[in-house]
Amino acid sequence: MSALRFERVALIGIGLIGSSLARVLRRDGLAGEIVACARQAATLDAVRRLGLADRVTAEAADAARDADLVMICTPLSAYAAIGRAIAPVLKPGAIVSDVGSVKGAVVRELKPLLPPGVHLVPGHPVAGTEHSGPEAGFAEMFHDRWCILTPLPDGDADALERVGALWRAAGMKVVTMDAEHHDKVLAITSHLPHLIAYTIVGTATDLEDTLKSEVIKFSAGGFRDFTRIAASDPVMWRDVFLNNREAVLEMLQRFTEDLTALQRAIRWGEGDKLQELFTRTRAIRRSIIEAKQA
Amino acid sequence: MSALRFERVALIGIGLIGSSLARVLRRDGLAGEIVACARQAATLDAVRRLGLADRVTAEAADAARDADLVMICTPLSAYAAIGRAIAPVLKPGAIVSDVGSVKGAVVRELKPLLPPGVHLVPGHPVAGTEHSGPEAGFAEMFHDRWCILTPLPDGDADALERVGALWRAAGMKVVTMDAEHHDKVLAITSHLPHLIAYTIVGTATDLEDTLKSEVIKFSAGGFRDFTRIAASDPVMWRDVFLNNREAVLEMLQRFTEDLTALQRAIRWGEGDKLQELFTRTRAIRRSIIEAKQA
Repeated sequence: MSALRFERVALIGIGLIGSSLARVLRRDGLAGEIVACARQAATLDAVRRLGLADRVTAEAADAARDADLVMICTPLSAYAAIGRAIAPVLKPGAIVSDVGSVKGAVVRELKPLLPPGVHLVPGHPVAGTEHSGPEAGFAEMFHDRWCILTPLPDGDADALERVGALWRAAGMKVVTMDAEHHDKVLAITSHLPHLIAYTIVGTATDLEDTLKSEVIKFSAGGFRDFTRIAASDPVMWRDVFLNNREAVLEMLQRFTEDLTALQRAIRWGEGDKLQELFTRTRAIRRSIIEAKQA
Repeated sequence: MSALRFERVALIGIGLIGSSLARVLRRDGLAGEIVACARQAATLDAVRRLGLADRVTAEAADAARDADLVMICTPLSAYAAIGRAIAPVLKPGAIVSDVGSVKGAVVRELKPLLPPGVHLVPGHPVAGTEHSGPEAGFAEMFHDRWCILTPLPDGDADALERVGALWRAAGMKVVTMDAEHHDKVLAITSHLPHLIAYTIVGTATDLEDTLKSEVIKFSAGGFRDFTRIAASDPVMWRDVFLNNREAVLEMLQRFTEDLTALQRAIRWGEGDKLQELFTRTRAIRRSIIEAKQA
């Protein structure tokens, strides 16, 4: 366990993911000291009340000073400012990692800001719920889920191993891949589903009032599942789409083509085409159940 | 309880919904005799094995003869043939009802086939899972969900009351509405969500093989929820889209416009537009939780 332990961990941003990680660190005694940083006083109050950190601060530099591990758990749009704020105070050999849902653009932005001798290990624990904030976190959230690390070609092997070991301690299965590939995979498995869920819930929101109240009433027929996804953190998701633009637009284009083909099949009453697709999609569900990701 | 009881109930089609209803009838002693009808021998075997009916048959007319209540629980495309088969044997005063997800087109088709003195009470218990077949049913499926009845303007009030009482006994909250209105509400709450889920899972299925295996692996980020919806019965859903064409195409058109606007916002980096929508959609989730439909 000692190789796993960090003397001081700074969590920059302590919402759903950050607070869940804090709970893991606490539970397993993986950090000598946890310093939590958040901009909003209400968040810091919650962190104090929940006992998630040894120290709280509103200043990223204050949190990162002398930290062995700085884990950025904020929306992506905050990364550049955080990078600039912490760069002067990072100690040599410190590891900077993150939990962001996009890797390529972010790493390109963050890397040049960090001083030599500091190790950047970009990461993405693929786990979460539709809830936000430190109260919503829980240590078991990572259990049996995947964590994707996207190390830089010239990245430090030891730092990579330490971050990987941390997520494995949280119960995750850790894989590494290229940042661009990560962004492509997540565009279809996560970003596009969220975009579509947000859209259909928005479409329903814009309906005439009489229809709208009934949409809520009869949501159990499928719509409900979309509203859960579309209740995810708005700022976090705004940043995801702005930072993974190319891959999302590419997948969206494919989706739109497929949807148009189905629309046409419905209009022309081509039942065989519909049934063929609906039968094919069942198979992928079975694969997910077999892969124990259901 | 005696006013609720039917001497003989014929279940034409005994998959997920029909078998769940059979379990309710059994549990509460609501039927003197249950006759189950299915085309496939394997289904009838399962019904026998599970003890869901007193008698099984492959002929709809055989099941409907002397029944007080004939409940059609098949895909919509079978309705016309069933109507023609059972019409000659229905006893005066018999109630014919159904559980189909589309009402307008189906009622227009079924009504003229039935003899005078037989009461048609179209219904739609809004409940289900992604599983199919008699093994997948369970009596609690209807609990606390809505059942929509769409009585004909000249329909029999007593027959309507008896069918409503049956679904209430199953634990459902029963409402009545116009068939066309039902089809509009369900187009947005159920049919469009299913169409979109089928589409995105199809889009993922068509990806290059290397990407596809990773889609399954990392499905927890949102995609997984769509695969569950897209695992629903292919024939049932084919029939839904073919029979609720106008309402589905209308909602699909609205959805596509909204999706195109979001696509444009992503392309041009309009973060404020994205955040504004993502914030609005959270509210509808809260309404669903408050309406206890989450």
